[in-house]
Amino acid sequence: MDWEVKIETKLKDGILDPQGKAVKTGLKSLGYENVDSVFVGKYMEIIIKDISKKEDASEMVEDMCKKLLANPVIEEYKYELNKMEG
Amino acid sequence: MDWEVKIETKLKDGILDPQGKAVKTGLKSLGYENVDSVFVGKYMEIIIKDISKKEDASEMVEDMCKKLLANPVIEEYKYELNKMEG
Repeated sequence: MDWEVKIETKLKDGILDPQGKAVKTGLKSLGYENVDSVFVGKYMEIIIKDISKKEDASEMVEDMCKKLLANPVIEEYKYELNKMEG
Repeated sequence: MDWEVKIETKLKDGILDPQGKAVKTGLKSLGYENVDSVFVGKYMEIIIKDISKKEDASEMVEDMCKKLLANPVIEEYKYELNKMEG
Protein backbone atom coordinates (compact mmCIF):
# COMPACT_ATOMS: atom_id res chain seq x y z
CA MET A 1 0.00 0.00 0.00
CA ASP A 2 1.26 3.48 -0.90
CA TRP A 3 0.48 6.62 1.05
CA GLU A 4 0.39 10.32 0.38
CA VAL A 5 1.22 12.54 3.33
CA LYS A 6 0.60 16.28 3.50
CA ILE A 7 2.44 18.01 6.31
CA GLU A 8 2.12 21.60 7.51
CA THR A 9 4.58 23.06 9.98
CA LYS A 10 4.20 26.38 11.74
CA LEU A 11 6.13 28.20 14.44
CA LYS A 12 4.60 27.81 17.91
CA ASP A 13 2.73 30.73 19.43
CA GLY A 14 5.12 33.22 20.95
CA ILE A 15 8.05 32.30 18.70
CA LEU A 16 9.19 35.28 16.63
CA ASP A 17 8.31 34.85 12.94
CA PRO A 18 10.44 37.34 10.96
CA GLN A 19 9.39 35.84 7.62
CA GLY A 20 5.71 36.30 8.49
CA LYS A 21 6.41 39.87 9.53
CA ALA A 22 8.19 40.57 6.24
CA VAL A 23 5.31 39.14 4.21
CA LYS A 24 2.83 41.22 6.23
CA THR A 25 4.84 44.38 5.55
CA GLY A 26 4.97 43.47 1.87
CA LEU A 27 1.22 42.96 1.67
CA LYS A 28 0.50 46.23 3.48
CA SER A 29 2.80 48.11 1.14
CA LEU A 30 0.87 46.65 -1.81
CA GLY A 31 -2.27 48.20 -0.32
CA TYR A 32 -3.81 45.20 1.46
CA GLU A 33 -4.68 47.15 4.59
CA ASN A 34 -7.09 44.49 5.89
CA VAL A 35 -4.27 42.01 6.53
CA ASP A 36 -3.97 41.62 10.29
CA SER A 37 -1.36 38.91 10.76
CA VAL A 38 0.73 36.49 8.73
CA PHE A 39 2.45 33.27 9.78
CA VAL A 40 4.79 31.47 7.42
CA GLY A 41 5.65 27.79 7.73
CA LYS A 42 6.48 24.84 5.53
CA TYR A 43 4.26 22.59 3.46
CA MET A 44 5.46 19.15 2.40
CA GLU A 45 4.05 16.32 0.35
CA ILE A 46 5.64 12.94 0.78
CA ILE A 47 4.90 9.66 -0.97
CA ILE A 48 5.58 6.55 1.11
CA LYS A 49 5.68 3.13 -0.56
CA ASP A 50 4.91 -0.39 0.58
CA ILE A 51 3.53 0.01 4.06
CA SER A 52 0.46 -2.10 4.65
CA LYS A 53 -1.10 -0.63 7.79
CA LYS A 54 -2.19 2.98 8.22
CA GLU A 55 -1.02 2.93 11.86
CA ASP A 56 2.50 1.99 10.77
CA ALA A 57 2.57 4.74 8.13
CA SER A 58 1.27 7.23 10.68
CA GLU A 59 3.89 6.24 13.23
CA MET A 60 6.62 6.63 10.61
CA VAL A 61 5.38 10.12 9.72
CA GLU A 62 5.31 11.21 13.39
CA ASP A 63 8.82 9.92 13.73
CA MET A 64 10.08 11.70 10.59
CA CYS A 65 8.48 14.97 11.73
CA LYS A 66 10.20 14.83 15.10
CA LYS A 67 13.58 13.78 13.72
CA LEU A 68 13.93 15.84 10.57
CA LEU A 69 10.91 17.60 9.08
CA ALA A 70 10.01 19.90 11.95
CA ASN A 71 11.86 21.30 14.93
CA PRO A 72 9.61 20.25 17.83
CA VAL A 73 11.18 22.84 20.13
CA ILE A 74 9.86 25.79 18.14
CA GLU A 75 7.48 24.33 15.57
CA GLU A 76 4.16 22.57 15.64
CA TYR A 77 3.11 20.28 12.82
CA LYS A 78 0.04 18.51 11.57
CA TYR A 79 -0.41 16.02 8.80
CA GLU A 80 -2.97 14.23 6.72
CA LEU A 81 -2.34 10.68 5.56
CA ASN A 82 -4.22 9.26 2.58
CA LYS A 83 -4.08 5.92 0.85
CA MET A 84 -3.08 6.25 -2.81
CA GLU A 85 -5.29 4.71 -5.46
CA GLY A 86 -4.08 2.11 -7.91
CA MET B 1 -16.27 39.98 9.44
CA ASP B 2 -12.80 38.51 9.98
CA TRP B 3 -11.33 35.65 7.97
CA GLU B 4 -8.65 33.05 8.46
CA VAL B 5 -6.87 31.94 5.31
CA LYS B 6 -4.64 28.88 5.04
CA ILE B 7 -2.50 28.84 1.93
CA GLU B 8 -0.29 26.06 0.58
CA THR B 9 2.14 26.66 -2.24
CA LYS B 10 4.03 23.99 -4.11
CA LEU B 11 6.32 23.94 -7.14
CA LYS B 12 4.55 22.95 -10.35
CA ASP B 13 5.15 19.49 -11.78
CA GLY B 14 8.38 19.39 -13.72
CA ILE B 15 10.02 22.24 -11.81
CA LEU B 16 13.20 21.09 -10.08
CA ASP B 17 12.76 20.96 -6.29
CA PRO B 18 16.25 20.85 -4.73
CA GLN B 19 14.88 21.32 -1.21
CA GLY B 20 12.58 18.33 -1.62
CA LYS B 21 15.48 16.30 -2.95
CA ALA B 22 17.62 17.26 0.05
CA VAL B 23 14.87 16.29 2.50
CA LYS B 24 14.41 12.96 0.71
CA THR B 25 18.15 12.23 0.94
CA GLY B 26 18.05 13.15 4.63
CA LEU B 27 15.13 10.84 5.33
CA LYS B 28 16.77 7.96 3.44
CA SER B 29 19.99 8.41 5.38
CA LEU B 30 17.98 8.19 8.62
CA GLY B 31 16.75 4.80 7.44
CA TYR B 32 13.31 5.70 6.04
CA GLU B 33 13.71 3.55 2.95
CA ASN B 34 9.98 3.62 2.11
CA VAL B 35 10.07 7.32 1.26
CA ASP B 36 9.53 7.61 -2.48
CA SER B 37 9.31 11.33 -3.14
CA VAL B 38 9.27 14.62 -1.25
CA PHE B 39 8.02 18.04 -2.33
CA VAL B 40 8.64 21.09 -0.19
CA GLY B 41 6.57 24.25 -0.39
CA LYS B 42 5.27 27.02 1.83
CA TYR B 43 2.41 27.10 4.28
CA MET B 44 0.90 30.41 5.34
CA GLU B 45 -1.84 31.48 7.72
CA ILE B 46 -3.23 34.95 7.26
CA ILE B 47 -5.87 36.80 9.26
CA ILE B 48 -7.88 39.35 7.28
CA LYS B 49 -10.06 41.89 9.10
CA ASP B 50 -13.26 43.72 8.26
CA ILE B 51 -14.34 42.29 4.94
CA SER B 52 -18.04 41.52 4.87
CA LYS B 53 -18.44 39.21 1.86
CA LYS B 54 -16.66 35.89 1.41
CA GLU B 55 -16.36 36.56 -2.35
CA ASP B 56 -14.47 39.80 -1.67
CA ALA B 57 -12.14 38.07 0.79
CA SER B 58 -11.56 35.27 -1.68
CA GLU B 59 -10.79 37.69 -4.50
CA MET B 60 -8.33 39.52 -2.26
CA VAL B 61 -6.55 36.24 -1.40
CA GLU B 62 -6.28 35.24 -5.09
CA ASP B 63 -4.84 38.62 -5.80
CA MET B 64 -2.30 38.46 -2.95
CA CYS B 65 -1.19 34.98 -4.04
CA LYS B 66 -0.55 36.13 -7.60
CA LYS B 67 1.20 39.35 -6.62
CA LEU B 68 3.32 38.35 -3.64
CA LEU B 69 2.69 35.04 -1.87
CA ALA B 70 3.36 32.63 -4.73
CA ASN B 71 5.25 32.82 -7.98
CA PRO B 72 2.58 31.79 -10.51
CA VAL B 73 5.23 30.99 -13.13
CA ILE B 74 6.69 28.10 -11.15
CA GLU B 75 4.32 27.56 -8.21
CA GLU B 76 0.77 26.40 -7.77
CA TYR B 77 -1.24 27.38 -4.72
CA LYS B 78 -4.44 26.49 -3.00
CA TYR B 79 -6.19 28.05 -0.06
CA GLU B 80 -8.97 27.57 2.42
CA LEU B 81 -10.93 30.56 3.66
CA ASN B 82 -12.86 30.37 6.93
CA LYS B 83 -14.95 32.89 8.81
CA MET B 84 -13.56 33.59 12.28
CA GLU B 85 -15.87 33.24 15.25
CA GLY B 86 -16.61 36.08 17.64
